[in-house]
Amino acid sequence: MSKTLYILNGPNLNRLGTREPDVYGTKTLGDIEKACAELARDGGLDLVFRQTNAEGTLVDHVQEAADHAGALIINAGAYTHTSVALHDALRLVSVPVIELHLSNPAAREDFRRTNYVAPAATASICGFGAMGYDMAVTAAIRLVKT
Amino acid sequence: MSKTLYILNGPNLNRLGTREPDVYGTKTLGDIEKACAELARDGGLDLVFRQTNAEGTLVDHVQEAADHAGALIINAGAYTHTSVALHDALRLVSVPVIELHLSNPAAREDFRRTNYVAPAATASICGFGAMGYDMAVTAAIRLVKT
Amino acid sequence: MSKTLYILNGPNLNRLGTREPDVYGTKTLGDIEKACAELARDGGLDLVFRQTNAEGTLVDHVQEAADHAGALIINAGAYTHTSVALHDALRLVSVPVIELHLSNPAAREDFRRTNYVAPAATASICGFGAMGYDMAVTAAIRLVKT
Amino acid sequence: MSKTLYILNGPNLNRLGTREPDVYGTKTLGDIEKACAELARDGGLDLVFRQTNAEGTLVDHVQEAADHAGALIINAGAYTHTSVALHDALRLVSVPVIELHLSNPAAREDFRRTNYVAPAATASICGFGAMGYDMAVTAAIRLVKT
Amino acid sequence: MSKTLYILNGPNLNRLGTREPDVYGTKTLGDIEKACAELARDGGLDLVFRQTNAEGTLVDHVQEAADHAGALIINAGAYTHTSVALHDALRLVSVPVIELHLSNPAAREDFRRTNYVAPAATASICGFGAMGYDMAVTAAIRLVKT
Amino acid sequence: MSKTLYILNGPNLNRLGTREPDVYGTKTLGDIEKACAELARDGGLDLVFRQTNAEGTLVDHVQEAADHAGALIINAGAYTHTSVALHDALRLVSVPVIELHLSNPAAREDFRRTNYVAPAATASICGFGAMGYDMAVTAAIRLVKT
Amino acid sequence: MSKTLYILNGPNLNRLGTREPDVYGTKTLGDIEKACAELARDGGLDLVFRQTNAEGTLVDHVQEAADHAGALIINAGAYTHTSVALHDALRLVSVPVIELHLSNPAAREDFRRTNYVAPAATASICGFGAMGYDMAVTAAIRLVKT
Amino acid sequence: MSKTLYILNGPNLNRLGTREPDVYGTKTLGDIEKACAELARDGGLDLVFRQTNAEGTLVDHVQEAADHAGALIINAGAYTHTSVALHDALRLVSVPVIELHLSNPAAREDFRRTNYVAPAATASICGFGAMGYDMAVTAAIRLVKT
Amino acid sequence: MSKTLYILNGPNLNRLGTREPDVYGTKTLGDIEKACAELARDGGLDLVFRQTNAEGTLVDHVQEAADHAGALIINAGAYTHTSVALHDALRLVSVPVIELHLSNPAAREDFRRTNYVAPAATASICGFGAMGYDMAVTAAIRLVKT
Amino acid sequence: MSKTLYILNGPNLNRLGTREPDVYGTKTLGDIEKACAELARDGGLDLVFRQTNAEGTLVDHVQEAADHAGALIINAGAYTHTSVALHDALRLVSVPVIELHLSNPAAREDFRRTNYVAPAATASICGFGAMGYDMAVTAAIRLVKT
Amino acid sequence: MSKTLYILNGPNLNRLGTREPDVYGTKTLGDIEKACAELARDGGLDLVFRQTNAEGTLVDHVQEAADHAGALIINAGAYTHTSVALHDALRLVSVPVIELHLSNPAAREDFRRTNYVAPAATASICGFGAMGYDMAVTAAIRLVKT
Amino acid sequence: MSKTLYILNGPNLNRLGTREPDVYGTKTLGDIEKACAELARDGGLDLVFRQTNAEGTLVDHVQEAADHAGALIINAGAYTHTSVALHDALRLVSVPVIELHLSNPAAREDFRRTNYVAPAATASICGFGAMGYDMAVTAAIRLVKT
Repeated sequence: MSKTLYILNGPNLNRLGTREPDVYGTKTLGDIEKACAELARDGGLDLVFRQTNAEGTLVDHVQEAADHAGALIINAGAYTHTSVALHDALRLVSVPVIELHLSNPAAREDFRRTNYVAPAATASICGFGAMGYDMAVTAAIRLVKT
Repeated sequence: MSKTLYILNGPNLNRLGTREPDVYGTKTLGDIEKACAELARDGGLDLVFRQTNAEGTLVDHVQEAADHAGALIINAGAYTHTSVALHDALRLVSVPVIELHLSNPAAREDFRRTNYVAPAATASICGFGAMGYDMAVTAAIRLVKT
Repeated sequence: MSKTLYILNGPNLNRLGTREPDVYGTKTLGDIEKACAELARDGGLDLVFRQTNAEGTLVDHVQEAADHAGALIINAGAYTHTSVALHDALRLVSVPVIELHLSNPAAREDFRRTNYVAPAATASICGFGAMGYDMAVTAAIRLVKT
Repeated sequence: MSKTLYILNGPNLNRLGTREPDVYGTKTLGDIEKACAELARDGGLDLVFRQTNAEGTLVDHVQEAADHAGALIINAGAYTHTSVALHDALRLVSVPVIELHLSNPAAREDFRRTNYVAPAATASICGFGAMGYDMAVTAAIRLVKT
Repeated sequence: MSKTLYILNGPNLNRLGTREPDVYGTKTLGDIEKACAELARDGGLDLVFRQTNAEGTLVDHVQEAADHAGALIINAGAYTHTSVALHDALRLVSVPVIELHLSNPAAREDFRRTNYVAPAATASICGFGAMGYDMAVTAAIRLVKT
Repeated sequence: MSKTLYILNGPNLNRLGTREPDVYGTKTLGDIEKACAELARDGGLDLVFRQTNAEGTLVDHVQEAADHAGALIINAGAYTHTSVALHDALRLVSVPVIELHLSNPAAREDFRRTNYVAPAATASICGFGAMGYDMAVTAAIRLVKT
Repeated sequence: MSKTLYILNGPNLNRLGTREPDVYGTKTLGDIEKACAELARDGGLDLVFRQTNAEGTLVDHVQEAADHAGALIINAGAYTHTSVALHDALRLVSVPVIELHLSNPAAREDFRRTNYVAPAATASICGFGAMGYDMAVTAAIRLVKT
Repeated sequence: MSKTLYILNGPNLNRLGTREPDVYGTKTLGDIEKACAELARDGGLDLVFRQTNAEGTLVDHVQEAADHAGALIINAGAYTHTSVALHDALRLVSVPVIELHLSNPAAREDFRRTNYVAPAATASICGFGAMGYDMAVTAAIRLVKT
Repeated sequence: MSKTLYILNGPNLNRLGTREPDVYGTKTLGDIEKACAELARDGGLDLVFRQTNAEGTLVDHVQEAADHAGALIINAGAYTHTSVALHDALRLVSVPVIELHLSNPAAREDFRRTNYVAPAATASICGFGAMGYDMAVTAAIRLVKT
Repeated sequence: MSKTLYILNGPNLNRLGTREPDVYGTKTLGDIEKACAELARDGGLDLVFRQTNAEGTLVDHVQEAADHAGALIINAGAYTHTSVALHDALRLVSVPVIELHLSNPAAREDFRRTNYVAPAATASICGFGAMGYDMAVTAAIRLVKT
Repeated sequence: MSKTLYILNGPNLNRLGTREPDVYGTKTLGDIEKACAELARDGGLDLVFRQTNAEGTLVDHVQEAADHAGALIINAGAYTHTSVALHDALRLVSVPVIELHLSNPAAREDFRRTNYVAPAATASICGFGAMGYDMAVTAAIRLVKT
Repeated sequence: MSKTLYILNGPNLNRLGTREPDVYGTKTLGDIEKACAELARDGGLDLVFRQTNAEGTLVDHVQEAADHAGALIINAGAYTHTSVALHDALRLVSVPVIELHLSNPAAREDFRRTNYVAPAATASICGFGAMGYDMAVTAAIRLVKT
């Protein structure tokens, strides 16, 4: 099994730390990437960490992960709720897929109830803020090992 | 407050003037840009005017506007009805956002009732054709001044 | 074409300026009428400006406008969302009809999604507060001239 | 802040290990309790671990946790989807509440889309099987400390 | 009338032949392109054959086809179900548009019932696997000739 | 039993003959009243014939009919689709109530499917244009006699 | 124009007079046919009067009427609510089509709200019991003459 | 705080005592007014008691109450279920608003589930018949005092 | 008729006075019971006052009331919205049933619109806080006497 | 295979014979138990017969049946329509499960259309009153033997 | 009371024994008829046993049963879910009607939730396979005798 | 494998060529049958070609095809949208089933969205007019050979 962990981030996550800090915290995506890389290395995994605002590029990244990843963590942001293309791409992935959200979507707008990532994911973590990335990486390390 | 006015245009608006002229008129987007630039200059504002067919690029543009604009006018075309990513990006903008449509969506297909731009906009103008751009720029000038 | 501009206002707009000033501003309907009359005169139009809390009376006014107006601006208030009678009356009007709202209905209750005015209107302006009346009058003057 | 961690389990979780092992794994709830107790102790927390098939008793337990817990982990099983009483009880809890599910409900029947726990929870973990309990306890320890 | 046939393919179709071969067959998109080119040449048409994972790029391609194609075959993949922008672009095309799907969407998930391509297409073919491309090209040749 | 026939007409029917003549014909409501009065007299009935644009006044008229009419014919226009108050008033009428429409609502907008008059009426006639008034009066005469 | 009037009756109408007499009256379909034939003859029309319990046969009859009738009266019974085939057949008829029902469907079960006859009919009469047949024949005579 | 209690009654309540006495009792609205006036006087309040069949007039009355009342009791009858204008007017009232119904709407038609008064009211009483007026006046007296 | 008044309380009402005091007030359920007992005694009634978090126990209590009560007041809390079993039990009660709620459910979450108590109750009181208990007891005394 | 037949009864069935006898008959649950025991014995089966008003206890009983029963007959009463916990418990049962209802739910309220027992049952019998118990026992005996 | 038992079978039941034997068993409809005839004779009843693929013919058969049967058993197959005509015919039957299905519709497609037979039937049996016919005949014999 | 190709046509297709020629073309069903027979013969297949207006007869034909056909092409017309009986019959067919429509249903009425043929078909062709029959026969020949 591949020793590479993919963490893919969708639209507007490049604004993390500047956007509604009381909801999403003050850490930037760069801070998070650094923490994840360290955790992954300790767990014996290489890390590929990406962000894009474009649905098609996110699909490209998932296809790449389908070929090269040992596990995939995806925080698809708004594309979670609208992208069937992403759903189809995730269906191509045979390694564990962990869906990740910073906030708890159950406490937000109705249109965030539609979710095309979850039915194509193995498991999900949401509402823990930046700490959710740590949890997902730790879980991915365990899943890759088993 | 910034003296730059952003006007962002979504998919298929590059075809304006060629597409169903009895519905959308014969002016091209180039004609409109020229008219807006003139009006903006008279009102003391610089104009950034963009068009893209890609949702992700439109999100990029809105993020840029969030950093640099004094006001934002957005005719998101079809992404109005499908893009939660755009909605999230618009939520990042703290200056006035004016939603603009050439035609009156209430007289069109049902799927144009879903609107992710409106709840993240300050105000909206629709159904005035190309004249709507003039109205939006004039209003934006007043809003930037107050 | 008639040189008379009708501005019709629906229920509770007589309370403007006293009602939720942070949402609707502090201008009264009298203040607005005065401003509109001035703008209309400058544009060469006579102004008929009315307000009523009664659906039937609003229908009467629209029928009158169907006979005498060169353009019609209507802020139908709550009847926007419930009055098929108003819809039918507006269908009788052959001159331009501009729908006007002070606030942005997309940011309010779900029952304000139903809209019987929009499909019978040429164009609409909403969310600009009292400034929307100015914009509508200016647009109406242009539309009457063309 | 209290040093007691509550883990509450709802209906049919007493059958764990015997019920559809390919979906839910072969560990019993007793095995899980033991593992959690160890983890909690290492993290400096006391553990209260309960299971009940009765909605009213689950409400009693949540009320107790509202008075005595530093954090609450709840796997409400089927009551997740039907119990407004449980929702109301969770609203009484002011410490972090972590919703936990063994499987990924997005891949199951439609009636599991209704969720009364999530809107009253801080965060959620699902689809990791028994490993989800470990993750929840670890997260709870961090949350109690901050 | 133009002698160029456009065949446009949407997201994840670049993975054909590797993805769920029992559903979609073992032919790659390259194999299909070769077969289509041969069939088109025999029918006296030039072939433009494209694939993209990006909605905006697919819109660009359709706009290009609107200017240059004698007929358009489109397998929009997942964007069939979510892209109003694609729908609007297809509305700009005045030559025959044939919608194509490898599998029978009636036998798949509910969210594949929403279809923005069909109402803007002349005709459709689905469920024939790779053979559907042959059928579509053959039909397009006949339609271009009449 | 009372020898008085009430014919009540709702909003916008005062515009009959001027409004969309190809849908509703060229007869005015005055023409229709004259024809009905003659038919009623021949059938031995007095006629009360009213029109109003106001829902409340229509309710007043129905209450009056409840006290004085031998039969009631009602063309409630748009209030058919929105007025529960009218429904409640019609429930007070113990003589036959004939619902009348000039056009066939089944061929019109969806919002005309909601009908508060029909469930409180004995019978209905629609789609016969002005001739429907004749038919209703003739039927009412027969119903009053039996 | 043809001098033949078709009256077509759908399922269970052969039981008229025996079935729930307090709802449908005591007249049999034979009684009604006799009365209609007399009225038609007085109006100068020949009458074809049919009943069938079979949807396909009713479609056959409507196709026959499409070729030979000057007007068509149809009481489609339960097929009103379920038969798209009947709808399509009625669309083939270019002479006036009068929909007829003995009772008032608005006062019955919800599934009688679906109506495939009405959108393909010119006009409709319902709730007058057997008297409705007289009214329909009289109206048909007038419509054939004009 | 004002010492005036407003009791406003909507459409068809003027028929009370004559209409379905087994549902609504035999007391007329006049009887009820007398009883309320007495109770109010004992409680130290003046009473304004109104009834109207017109939605617009009911809105006028509520606006008047917004200016002059210490408490408002409203039995809006059918306008409860259809009037957004009434909802908006009630939002203008800053003193306690008690919604009142004679019967229990939960046991009636589905269209009485829509309620525009309740979300703008402080509290509600229903199903007690005429006794509900006594209860509302008694409660209003207590609320005005606190 | 029995001289015993039952007041039954559902889930989480044992937390009254501690839970969101600005919504529900500071009185405990014990305070309320005391006040009710006094009022009941003055009215010549014995009081049975119960609270339970369990649906089945609430059903038991209602069955007991069906055998022994002269009137039943029920604040079913969350079971109002989910319990068909409670609905069926209330259908067994032949004496007056008064539904009681502390707050106004119309101003709360959508899932509180479903109500299984109301269609099985005689009348209801909501939104008056603890004062609603007094009102219900006073009304029950009057109902038992008549 | 076990020789024990479980018959489990849900809420309000303890009131049988006293509750709406014209709908449910005059036999008590004790009468029914006696008849079933006799039939079971004749068929060579032991009978366990239970009733409870509590959802959690019903789940306990089903879990017990999952361990000890050769066949399970369940009349879940109102929990049929609301209990996902019961559904999950029934999924644990590997022997035949017969769903039983005294009345025909198709002729009752809409909320009885939701059914969580049926999809987890082998077969069902409803509308035969107390005779349905006999039929179910007889069928269970045949199923246990095969 | 008539001594004739009607058993009517709808579309595709003539294929029984050949169609999906693991779902419907290997018995043909002929085998079933033979078994039913024997059981009926033992119970003192004559048997009329029919099958048809045609909705109209099934309606004819039900009308015949309405005149001649002592009890009616109907397995309407797919017409259960689509035939209002069948529903109306069954409403004409005054003797007991037993609805029968071989499989458990609750475990099948959503469109099998619509059921026009059940609301017109006395009772129903489903999911017992061919054994259900025996059960229905046995029950019919008991019902005819009482 | 059988060498017989079945082409089955549903209601109103016998009117082809006379019915809305601008939508469906001027070819009659006879013309089409001739063309198909020729194509089939060239491909080495015998042709059975049928049309019926009756649902039951269409089911008979499909059952016959289930026994004798090597492939089945079905243009079920309106029964596509209403016939579960047809769906069930098609489920009995083990050879390829090609669904065929002359027009593009996506561009027609909403009630044509319901489709009972598609989920029981292998593939579908629509919107090509009479040319669709050629395409279907050609495809069937290829499918029979493989």
